[in-house]
Amino acid sequence: MSDRLIRELFVKYFHNAYLSQMTDSALVPVNSGKLAFTTDSYVVDPIFFPGGDIGKLAVCGTVNDLSVSGAQPLYLSAGFILEEGLPLEDLEMIVRSMSEEAQKAGVQIVTGDTKIVNKGKADKVFINTAGVGVLPEKRLHVSEGRHIQPGDQVIINGSIGEHGIAVMGAREKLNIKNSVESDCASLNHLIQEIFEKNEGVRFIRDLTRGGLASVLVEIVESRTFGIRFNETTVPVREEVKSFCEMLGFDPLYLANEGKIVIIVSAGQADQILKEMQRHAFGINSSIIGEVVNEYQGKVVMETEIGGTRLIDKITGEQLPRIC
Amino acid sequence: MSDRLIRELFVKYFHNAYLSQMTDSALVPVNSGKLAFTTDSYVVDPIFFPGGDIGKLAVCGTVNDLSVSGAQPLYLSAGFILEEGLPLEDLEMIVRSMSEEAQKAGVQIVTGDTKIVNKGKADKVFINTAGVGVLPEKRLHVSEGRHIQPGDQVIINGSIGEHGIAVMGAREKLNIKNSVESDCASLNHLIQEIFEKNEGVRFIRDLTRGGLASVLVEIVESRTFGIRFNETTVPVREEVKSFCEMLGFDPLYLANEGKIVIIVSAGQADQILKEMQRHAFGINSSIIGEVVNEYQGKVVMETEIGGTRLIDKITGEQLPRIC
Repeated sequence: MSDRLIRELFVKYFHNAYLSQMTDSALVPVNSGKLAFTTDSYVVDPIFFPGGDIGKLAVCGTVNDLSVSGAQPLYLSAGFILEEGLPLEDLEMIVRSMSEEAQKAGVQIVTGDTKIVNKGKADKVFINTAGVGVLPEKRLHVSEGRHIQPGDQVIINGSIGEHGIAVMGAREKLNIKNSVESDCASLNHLIQEIFEKNEGVRFIRDLTRGGLASVLVEIVESRTFGIRFNETTVPVREEVKSFCEMLGFDPLYLANEGKIVIIVSAGQADQILKEMQRHAFGINSSIIGEVVNEYQGKVVMETEIGGTRLIDKITGEQLPRIC
Repeated sequence: MSDRLIRELFVKYFHNAYLSQMTDSALVPVNSGKLAFTTDSYVVDPIFFPGGDIGKLAVCGTVNDLSVSGAQPLYLSAGFILEEGLPLEDLEMIVRSMSEEAQKAGVQIVTGDTKIVNKGKADKVFINTAGVGVLPEKRLHVSEGRHIQPGDQVIINGSIGEHGIAVMGAREKLNIKNSVESDCASLNHLIQEIFEKNEGVRFIRDLTRGGLASVLVEIVESRTFGIRFNETTVPVREEVKSFCEMLGFDPLYLANEGKIVIIVSAGQADQILKEMQRHAFGINSSIIGEVVNEYQGKVVMETEIGGTRLIDKITGEQLPRIC
């Protein structure tokens, strides 16, 4: 892989007015206000998996991080660390995925960097994407969930655990019947729509590493309310359930890359749910629980068989290199 | 290394109002205008070297990339990829370096991410920093050097090649007499001062990978002028010279991390030079050459012995993992 070939690849797929300045810093316009700025490194193993690859993931993940803060994602950076010997075709597939996903999301990859390390000093390819977006003042409360209050409803935009299972399945080369695909998707359009149409959105968070359980626990931590949700209302696909039973995973803790929880005022919950269900990435949305005065700082699940279970933060190791 | 320990380390050293929101996206204020946005991954080997470490480098490099575009650097992101088994003390030294260098530069590290990969799947630590800054409209021409014209003077802020030699020396465990230290430094204060006091600044570029030669060649490429400079006016320390003679390197192509070339109007050159020489990172500044009508698209060096030499782009491999 020569520097020149790699550069040509990036120009081919990432072409836009800002990137093509080809200077070290991209110069992009923004309006006055709050800027949202985020970064994530992607080290997923394997780099290709059902439903996506490391490139798609690197765009979706950062777009979603910006979106859940209330911001409109605008610009991404892309930093590649390549292991010597990575086939150029693989890199091209990844770069093409990034380009396609950026187009879908309506963001521009405006600056980038590539480093190459010797064989054995990295694992094929690692990608860092940082992202910049703008945030309307009136959404400033959203990222910390300052307006969450008892009575608020908890909505999820679809079934959980698919990204985790898709990656683990590909890594371990398990023969999963009806192979599960990653739910990897850029949710910014869905999220923008909800924000624009509704004043009652209190909080949005993407369910990545640590899954639904970890996010719910984080929401209530050191707050004066709890969350109660119902096991039967959380959508989990049959294939994901069987895989989890087989290997001892709990879908509540599995990673997702196209799933969010939204906490909304009780009065607007039904309307927001309907709007979400009309969107491609929200068809299977459902209300799974509510914010309650009881269980202060805790998350409690009503189980299928009628009991209750206290939901803990993930204990022990998280699945490594899932994103 | 547990997730908790690592998180505590970052909170300890990177504490600031924006980072401590601890949400996925940092929300930071900016004024309307052009935003400069850049990214770089750092994979330097070894991670500690005379004059710096990978953390200091990751801050300086990105601060400098923003600064040379004309922007005032404001916010950095930091994405870490850690190899399992990296001693926590090493990580702490690196994080502390980043914190200290960010303070010196007056920038804030506002968002971050850490991924851990198995032993043998990375090399100790890789760091990506992306950076955001704001750019006054009147400096928009600088990053592409649109106002460069024949007669302009070429200034360098000090001696070249020290970063490259410091890293290579540390990597190969060479016994370099009077061990050379990396010139790694955040040049934003120097650069801001020059911009603020002078209208005649046409172009600034940092001399990183590829060194002085590569930057000069890039400047003239597909332009209607050339650059002529004098070998004897380019500052090179004796230790760097001997090391280069010994190993067959050319200092013109060696990496620097605290060096810039500035192209300025002939009328302001002396004044800018004097201002630079008063600054800690510009004491050894000198005028090394000028932009000329001859040699269109080419860089020519007048050698010590009175001849001229055409300066090429770097041929063959660049030194790997120098930054």
